[in-house]
Formats: sequence, structure tokens, C-alpha cells
Amino acid sequence: MERTLARDAVERVGYAVEVSGWVHRVRNLGGVVFIILRDRSGMIQLVTDKEFNHPVESVITVRGVVSGNEKAPGGYEIAIESFKILAEAESDLPIAVNQDPESLSLEAILDNRMISLRNPKILSIFRLQAACVKAFADFFRGEDFTQIKTSKIIGGGSEGGTNLFSMDYFGKTAYLAQSPQLYKQTMVSSGLERVFEIGHAYRAEKHETPRHINEYVSLDIEMGFIDSEKPLMEIERRFMAYLFETVRRENPAELEAWNASVPDPESCAGIPIIPHDEAKAIFKAETGRRALDINPEAERVLCDWAEREHGIPMMFINEFPRRKRPFYTYPDGNKTMSFDLIFRGLEITTGGRRINEYSMFKEALKKFGMTEDELGSYVDVFKYGCPPHGGFAIGLERITQKILGLANIKEATLFPRDRKRVSP
Amino acid sequence: MERTLARDAVERVGYAVEVSGWVHRVRNLGGVVFIILRDRSGMIQLVTDKEFNHPVESVITVRGVVSGNEKAPGGYEIAIESFKILAEAESDLPIAVNQDPESLSLEAILDNRMISLRNPKILSIFRLQAACVKAFADFFRGEDFTQIKTSKIIGGGSEGGTNLFSMDYFGKTAYLAQSPQLYKQTMVSSGLERVFEIGHAYRAEKHETPRHINEYVSLDIEMGFIDSEKPLMEIERRFMAYLFETVRRENPAELEAWNASVPDPESCAGIPIIPHDEAKAIFKAETGRRALDINPEAERVLCDWAEREHGIPMMFINEFPRRKRPFYTYPDGNKTMSFDLIFRGLEITTGGRRINEYSMFKEALKKFGMTEDELGSYVDVFKYGCPPHGGFAIGLERITQKILGLANIKEATLFPRDRKRVSP
Repeated sequence: MERTLARDAVERVGYAVEVSGWVHRVRNLGGVVFIILRDRSGMIQLVTDKEFNHPVESVITVRGVVSGNEKAPGGYEIAIESFKILAEAESDLPIAVNQDPESLSLEAILDNRMISLRNPKILSIFRLQAACVKAFADFFRGEDFTQIKTSKIIGGGSEGGTNLFSMDYFGKTAYLAQSPQLYKQTMVSSGLERVFEIGHAYRAEKHETPRHINEYVSLDIEMGFIDSEKPLMEIERRFMAYLFETVRRENPAELEAWNASVPDPESCAGIPIIPHDEAKAIFKAETGRRALDINPEAERVLCDWAEREHGIPMMFINEFPRRKRPFYTYPDGNKTMSFDLIFRGLEITTGGRRINEYSMFKEALKKFGMTEDELGSYVDVFKYGCPPHGGFAIGLERITQKILGLANIKEATLFPRDRKRVSP
Repeated sequence: MERTLARDAVERVGYAVEVSGWVHRVRNLGGVVFIILRDRSGMIQLVTDKEFNHPVESVITVRGVVSGNEKAPGGYEIAIESFKILAEAESDLPIAVNQDPESLSLEAILDNRMISLRNPKILSIFRLQAACVKAFADFFRGEDFTQIKTSKIIGGGSEGGTNLFSMDYFGKTAYLAQSPQLYKQTMVSSGLERVFEIGHAYRAEKHETPRHINEYVSLDIEMGFIDSEKPLMEIERRFMAYLFETVRRENPAELEAWNASVPDPESCAGIPIIPHDEAKAIFKAETGRRALDINPEAERVLCDWAEREHGIPMMFINEFPRRKRPFYTYPDGNKTMSFDLIFRGLEITTGGRRINEYSMFKEALKKFGMTEDELGSYVDVFKYGCPPHGGFAIGLERITQKILGLANIKEATLFPRDRKRVSP
């Protein structure tokens, strides 16, 4: 008999079906046993008047007839005619799978990652994350961007060289890339003009905060033939609207599991663009204190302000001072053609126009105390005709975290890496 | 004026347009200068009776009126009314961009990667590769698979531990993952049941062959509730048909650039499934020599045989002996429920059913001289109810190489990593 998924069983009332999945919960009511079976599509109640002595999380295949039952979760159940154990679970499950994970500490969730991921609420985070990845790829493909895959092992630290993980590469020292920055610029100038990459990025930072991990997925774009950061903010604004629209349509169950919602896609048109200086002034007006920088507290205050004044808890901050941005950022006096996007109190994007003229590139290197030799053949990108261009990167885990309202970014990472955690 | 792409200019005959791109070629015919302009969409001829003294690869923006011209490549040209230099190229271009790369050595192509990628024929490899990535994601999403992103930094060498790159992780030794194997099994047992990942994999092998690189993109799937390798071969067969169909439809230009073609999608239904022993017998019958193993020569002979006998240069080889497969492969006597897929003389996939029962898992560890401790919490996947499952991985660069008929896998890698090459 062909397998029926739990969500489809409800359409087979009166028929015999075969379902397979995990034993999510067992209730023995003296003579009648109710079992909740969990599969990739959802859950369905099974009922039997025989004994059922198998631990939760055992994997079973069941045959029986579907009927409506108002008292059953979801309104349907299957009366077990026969069943087979595909894999019997041990009975000492380290953490509960069938309870709200609220009662578990982050440590318990991550220390028992193989099991905690089975919790439907926790697993729903990664269904939503997959939807974000798809939305990103679909949107930018639709805008004529080509997907690229660039190396994560690099010979030198071309973005400045701090906070790099080092590795042994056949007896030489190599590094893990902190971003695909130089490669995506290369691919703009290759003639693809518009590229995106979905790949890992590595930062050997000793942070211990709810917003940092040492390995993350970076949603990167880079595009040619733009002469300021404005078109970048515009395309990101349209992407955010597309993402929110997609998530509303495709992921209502995941949003509901976390009691979360996304901003109205239409309100993305109103995301304010606030110059860095002005953002600091808003912080001062809101708190009475001076902001030395746009720190996490300021990001929260500014998003609250944007929600109140513009109806959306997001803000583009542009015109960052030159000393706060990497050497390749396009200067505009003492400022730069760069921006961040903050969302619900967290920076989720950094981007900007990049230097493309060779002469300006050489000046910038000098200003930042770097040499052409350090950058190797990357210099060729600018030496032999590079169009005006720019791009940005969105942190996948950060946007997942903020859509669902998760307290810690590690919750939005399947197997997070931090200073202490390098497994599972 | 809004930018018009080269491919769209042909629809604007008689109108003034603005085009932007790279100076691909300049021909000065005494009084008239013909310039081929290259952008992401293609090329268009520009013509002027004024001087034009800018090196090839300079980036320019041009305004002028479009007209038909039978002698122009593509049949249209733009008479330059005005132009602006966006980025002047230096005149000492290290390798030619506007010639067939046939004349360049692989070393020259890779040593000058920033420039060689501008060659339209070389760049077309990566347009095709992007199409393969999209086809993979689209097909498996359509089969209810969820995309995952798993860590590439691992605490131990859980697949056996040889050929791993090691790195410094905050004072401790960690490794780069050689595959997402253990993680994708975790995600099957998490309840997602069907998962795919598009990510880097690392092998610290000292190979120096046209088919090996040390960092590659692995197209991985894993699925639950299958009890042999057969459904895996069946879904891969359908994927290959989908891929070939997509490439034929979407990438005729890339195929033409390399004078390449893909097998008829319908012929994928006839990909033979040949047990390992029988494959060796076919090799012997074809060559008169005994095959100790399915080596590269045997892969070529077998694909030729399949093309002759089954009309497609592909073959599934299954029933590999146990000693040739990793510890987690599901045994079947002395053989295993495993398979390879070979295509045009190259192994492009390895896969199989995996052990899911905890008791069998423990036996396998013992047989392979491993302990539960070595595997850490990965063991929990099997201890607490894991459905029968299996999966496979396709090498993205290998399938790109074989579709286009490239001599070396490094040609199909944007920034290849080999023993000597760690930049650009």
C-alpha cells in the first residue's frame, strides 16, 4: 500500500490508508490507547484498543481506516489495524520533543541538537529559513542576477585581515573567507554584472552576544552600473516586500508557531532612509543621551522610532563616515556611499557602492595602509575596466531570528558555531 | 536616459538608446571605427567616424541611434552620438578576452582568473553552472524536499577522519567537513524527512588529476522511508531528465559556445542499473582485461558501452562490496545498498541507503574499528528512532564539466583550489 501523509489522511475518510512517522505522544486511557503520529506534513491521531508499549520517537508504519473524530487533534483519526516498528527508540530521551521548548534552556537545546530539532516548533524555524533562501534566490534571479559559488579558502586576508580563521593548507597557512566581497566584485566585472551568492562566511570574533555566530550564511548580491547606494537600497526594499509577502503566503504555520508576524509588504515602500548623523540625532532626541555610534541599543531605539513614525520597524542608515567602513567603500567627502538596514533592533544588512576606478582604488589602499601586492590579482579587476558597482549582504540567521522573534541567533542556526561550540 | 541592454537594442531600430558595457574589440578602418560593446546580455556593434583611443576592456556608456546593418555581427549597430568613459582600462591586458580561449593553457587561464572570466566562452561555463544549481533546487523542492544549511566546521572527522583539512578554532583543532553526510541524516530524522543542501565540501587529498579539486560544491539530498537504493536511483534518473530538459531549453547559447549537447531527456528512462560485479565483467568483455576496480578507464569503457547498448552515456553501478563503502552504508550480505552514477566516463554521484537501526549501527561501528564516543551526539540520531533512509551527492563542478565536455574540472570552478593554488 502506498504511503499517505498525515495532512492528506483527512481526505481519505472511510478508506484504509498506510501512514508512517514518529510516535509523538502516547495516551493510555485504560483500554484505549491514543497515539499522535508525526510526519513531515503534520500530525494525525491513531487509536487502538490493544497494547502499545513503544517509547515516543519510535518510527512506525500503520495501516487503518480514517474517520472523523471531533475530539481528535485536527478532527480525524486512524483506527490501527496493523502496525510495524521501523525503528524502536530507546526510552531515555534526553529532552522532550513533544512539549513547548520554552521550558528548555538554550544550552539544553544546543547540547541535544540531534533531538531538539525534532521539536516541531524548533524545526519550524528551519522551514521558514528555507523559505527565506528560496525567496532570495527567486527574487534576484527575477532581476537578472546569476548565482555564483566562490571559494571559502583564501590565501590572504584581503578585507583587512583581522578576525580570520586560519587553516593548514598542504603545509601553508590559508584562511576562511569572511565574505565573498572580492569575488563578487570580480564577477560583476567579469561581465555577469549582477550576481548573488548564498554561502557561508566566517568570523573569528570572540563575541558572546545573542546576535553573533562565528559561521553564518550570507545572502550576498553585487550589481554593476549604479552610481550610488540608492539603487541598492531600492532593490533591497523591493526584496524585503517580496520576502514578507512570500512568508505570509507560504509560512503561516511557522509564523503561528512562534506567534510572529512580518511587516505589511506594502509598508516596505515607507522604510525611511536616514543619514548616519541624523540617526544619531534621532537617538539623542528619543533618549536624551548622545550616541557615540549606532550600537545595539541605538538600533532598537531607531527601529521603534521608525515603527512609530513610518509604520515599519526598519530603517536604512546611509552616509556612514569613511573611517567606519572598509577600504573599498566608495567615498563621498568624509562620508561614504554606504548603508545598513536595521530591522526590529538588529542590523541585518551592510552594503554600499564600491570603488571602481583604478586611480581611486590605489589612493584608498594608501589611505588604509595597504599595498597592491597584498591584494594580488584582485587588483586586475580595477586595472582593466570595472564598471561602477555596489552590493550588500543579508545575514540569513539574523533575518530568520527577527522574523520569528527569537531571543538568540543560535536558535536560528542548525548547528551553530561559537567560541565554545564546534559540535555537533 | 534609461540603459538598454545589447540584446534589446535590436528592437529599437530608428530610436536613440543608451548602452553600457565593456569595449570587447576595436577595428579602425581608416576613417570609420567599429567597436564591439559587450554587456551581460550579449554584444552590439558601435560605429563612429571620430577617433576612439581607449584600450579594450574599458567600460563605456554610449548614446546613439540603432539601425540594421547586415554586415554587423548580429545584424544591428549603433551610430555613436556621444560616449562617456566609466572606467578606462590599462593597455597591458595580460591575456586576450576577445579570442577563443583554446589557445590559452589552463595555467594561464587560472593564473589570470580575474581576466579570463571575462572571456564570454569561459564565462558561459558559469552561466550553465548557475542553471544546474537552480534546476537541482527546483526539482527537489518540487518533490517536497527542504533546503538546509549545515556547518562546514566540525569538531571531529566523523566519516572516518582521513583527508580532512584542519584549522585553528579558538586554540583548539577543528576540521572542514568532507560532506554534510551526518547532518543530512540528522535532518531526515528531525522530521523534515526529505532535505537537500547546496554547499561546499572539502577534501585534503593530494590528487593531481583532471577530476579532483580540494574544495567543491556538493549537491546533496537525503530522504526517509525508503528501504533500498532503488528509489534513490529512480529519483536521480528523473532529476537528470529534468536537468537535461532545462539545460536544453534555457542554455542553448552555452551549449553552442562549447559545441556541446546533453543526452535526450527521454533516454534517461533507459539508464542501465548494473551491479558492481557485472560492471567489472562488462569491462573485461570490452577490453579483454580484468578490472580490479571501477577506475577512470573503466568508467570511460562502461559509459561507452551504455551509450552503445542503451543509447545514453550513463550508468548506475550498484551493489558495491561493503569494504569499498563507508561504515554507515546499509549492508546486504557482503554487498551494500549503494550506487554510483557515471556519466561520460566520470563518476558524478555516490549514494545509497544508510544504516538506520541502532543495533546495526553499533555493529557497523565495531566492524569498522570505530566507537560511539568518536561520533558524539550523532549517535542520538539512531538511538531515538531513525526511519530507513538514504541519499546521494552530485558534484556540481563534475556535472558542469561533463555537460560541456571540459578537459579539466578546474575549468568548471570559478576559483579552484588544488595543492598549489589557494588564490585568487
